[in-house]
Amino acid sequence: MNQITGELKDSVTEVEEMKNHIGEEVKIHGSIYSIRKMSSFSFVLLRTKRKILQCTYIPGTAEFEEEKLKEESCVIVTAKVVEEKRSKTGYDLQMRGLEVLSVPEEGSPIVINHKLVDTSIENLLNYRPITLRNEKQRAIFKLQEGICNGFRQFLLKECFTEIHTPKIVQAGAEGGANIFRLDYFGKEAYLAQSPQFYKQMMVGVFERVFEIAPVFRAERHDTSRHLNEYTSVDFEMGYLESFTDIMQMETRMLRFAFAYLEEGYGEELELLKVKLPQLEAIPAIRFRDAKEMIAKEYCRMIKDYEDFEPEEEKLLCEYIQRETGSEFVFVTHYPSRKRPFYAMESRENAEETESFDLLFRGLEVTTGGQRIHSYREQVKKMEQRGMDTGLFESYLLMHKYGMPPHGGLGLGLERFTSRLLLQDNVRYSTLFPRDINRVIP
Amino acid sequence: MNQITGELKDSVTEVEEMKNHIGEEVKIHGSIYSIRKMSSFSFVLLRTKRKILQCTYIPGTAEFEEEKLKEESCVIVTAKVVEEKRSKTGYDLQMRGLEVLSVPEEGSPIVINHKLVDTSIENLLNYRPITLRNEKQRAIFKLQEGICNGFRQFLLKECFTEIHTPKIVQAGAEGGANIFRLDYFGKEAYLAQSPQFYKQMMVGVFERVFEIAPVFRAERHDTSRHLNEYTSVDFEMGYLESFTDIMQMETRMLRFAFAYLEEGYGEELELLKVKLPQLEAIPAIRFRDAKEMIAKEYCRMIKDYEDFEPEEEKLLCEYIQRETGSEFVFVTHYPSRKRPFYAMESRENAEETESFDLLFRGLEVTTGGQRIHSYREQVKKMEQRGMDTGLFESYLLMHKYGMPPHGGLGLGLERFTSRLLLQDNVRYSTLFPRDINRVIP
Repeated sequence: MNQITGELKDSVTEVEEMKNHIGEEVKIHGSIYSIRKMSSFSFVLLRTKRKILQCTYIPGTAEFEEEKLKEESCVIVTAKVVEEKRSKTGYDLQMRGLEVLSVPEEGSPIVINHKLVDTSIENLLNYRPITLRNEKQRAIFKLQEGICNGFRQFLLKECFTEIHTPKIVQAGAEGGANIFRLDYFGKEAYLAQSPQFYKQMMVGVFERVFEIAPVFRAERHDTSRHLNEYTSVDFEMGYLESFTDIMQMETRMLRFAFAYLEEGYGEELELLKVKLPQLEAIPAIRFRDAKEMIAKEYCRMIKDYEDFEPEEEKLLCEYIQRETGSEFVFVTHYPSRKRPFYAMESRENAEETESFDLLFRGLEVTTGGQRIHSYREQVKKMEQRGMDTGLFESYLLMHKYGMPPHGGLGLGLERFTSRLLLQDNVRYSTLFPRDINRVIP
Repeated sequence: MNQITGELKDSVTEVEEMKNHIGEEVKIHGSIYSIRKMSSFSFVLLRTKRKILQCTYIPGTAEFEEEKLKEESCVIVTAKVVEEKRSKTGYDLQMRGLEVLSVPEEGSPIVINHKLVDTSIENLLNYRPITLRNEKQRAIFKLQEGICNGFRQFLLKECFTEIHTPKIVQAGAEGGANIFRLDYFGKEAYLAQSPQFYKQMMVGVFERVFEIAPVFRAERHDTSRHLNEYTSVDFEMGYLESFTDIMQMETRMLRFAFAYLEEGYGEELELLKVKLPQLEAIPAIRFRDAKEMIAKEYCRMIKDYEDFEPEEEKLLCEYIQRETGSEFVFVTHYPSRKRPFYAMESRENAEETESFDLLFRGLEVTTGGQRIHSYREQVKKMEQRGMDTGLFESYLLMHKYGMPPHGGLGLGLERFTSRLLLQDNVRYSTLFPRDINRVIP
């Protein structure tokens, strides 16, 4: 019997350590990202876990033939770390030995080792397993990891409990027809549009909970901002004084995440030329006031009194930034008719809800609000809407047996990332997007 | 326009702070967990975010009628912190004022505030939103948060990139009929049985990746260890020297997670009487040898030479613990015919794979192994198995354009939790289980 002790042979030198090995030979593994021939030597760039590492191949010094170097080959290189003042890193990695672990069957049909992957978005996505190997393409998702963990670390710090709720469900939380149907052992089930019901139930258990997980929307929209599957950052909290508490919490979460990125993801921010928003305070404006203000300011007719047109969201953000400097704006008190059955109505005006959206650089990235916690109130509202309360029996258990005032929000991780990076399509920030025309790769 | 600055009114005193307020009045919010009447006063237990807090109601001292206290009411309490040497906490919380935020419509049909929820597993699950409010029930999921974050923190530390891959897919990774079908805008799609294909693709991008997300298995088993949806902890790593590297990494991950629990989840461990396993080294035994050893040791006939019976997994664990003291055992070199098409065959013997399972206290909790990285080898194996390689075109892109030797594993979070807690059914460690008979709550 062998014993597995957890000892890993640290066979390669980490990039951060390189400087401590000047004058020595080191071992590095990686994929050959590009080879640039100069007059008397070649630059060989190695793609490692997070960094692209520059080595030099000098004939006579290297102990192998240059022909053995092929782009996208996976290799183990031995190299001498030589001090080099002109280099940004302060050293040069002169190749000595080479072990080839694998050689690609073909060269990539799309050039991936230039600064940009110069192809259509369709090609970019069709060849995702390859195009993501581009330095900037992958940096998007390293940054997304940072955003996600920034949020998570903040929420854990604030005593939110992380939960895992089911994605196969018996009833939709968001209503409407935008729900995927599933054959569940001969019965009909659905894919969760959000963890709404479950995170509310869990407020009764832990007071504060969050989940970062996929949600599914069978929307037939084919736009630059819709996805049929996305990663939703959801939190829900109890003992609200008002729904403003949720916006305060989100403001702090965003501030924390930006600081988290600044601290741990500097290289990706620089590579992608991201300017993190300044976040002092976020203006909050009532939906009705926002509609009127845009109409007045931009001489536009109001066509729909209950919703924003995409153009209005852009104009509002433009206006708010000009007037206040903020790239974020909370829009509050959305009309009751446009919000789900669990939304709490405003105390002053039942036509409005204690709800909000957060707009960021022209696009809605968060929807949130306070929920109804009284059993009677919830049942009454469902009946008014002609809903069959029997279908929601297990959801209503929590109301029946006692719930605190509570509310929360959902934030689309991909959409948020794409606004941060000022991309014109959310698919650029989605690892493997799902839309009405795409289920592969 | 209002300004949201992120300022939260810290209106309540956190449990950890209580000691610093002796002699003062504090404000606490929570749910009334239980009321125990004594001869001249009552104990009132408040359920807060993580702790159950004991207050005392003393007639004459409290400024409200005792009748206002109802179990599962949500309240804000003002209390005086009085030093009390006999109390475990060192203080007593004497109730003064009470604000009732909500009153349950009915009393719970199941007693939830005793040490154990004394009911059938069916009832426990049917009333999940309520039964989870029990102190021990919810502690299971607080601990699960700790396990999950222990794994995650370890993987981030080891330079694994966290990814989010799609759950709606065009082809199954694990093969077989155990896959849920979905109507995707008129076309057939499936629910991912694992992130296998995607995490492999991402090894070509980041070298090391992980994902913690739901997976879906349409298995018709109705056993104490199967779920149709569960949370899978998946990691995948490149530049393996052998598949042993994966087991080494997992051993370290487990060790890290246990230390993480010990540090941050002491109260839950104590409440649930969890004994964390000692993890010095994990024995590894070949599948074939394990089968023969069990047969010999326990005088059993070998019925199936290619798989374990559940009873054999139990006996193997029993034997290994007796002989080595380890509660874990790696079983390696599973037969090729029982492993998926992407499993790498053993160099010495093509009938066996470079794969392993990890058994923990009688049950398999992890499956892992090295994958084929050569395009030709992968295509050949698929053809041998009669598979249509055209269906896997986007999967094979990564092999075609170059992949390092790589492998990884998947660990079932709920199953792992339930073994750690020595439960006889994985459903006890599943927040809202999905099985062949259950999609609610």
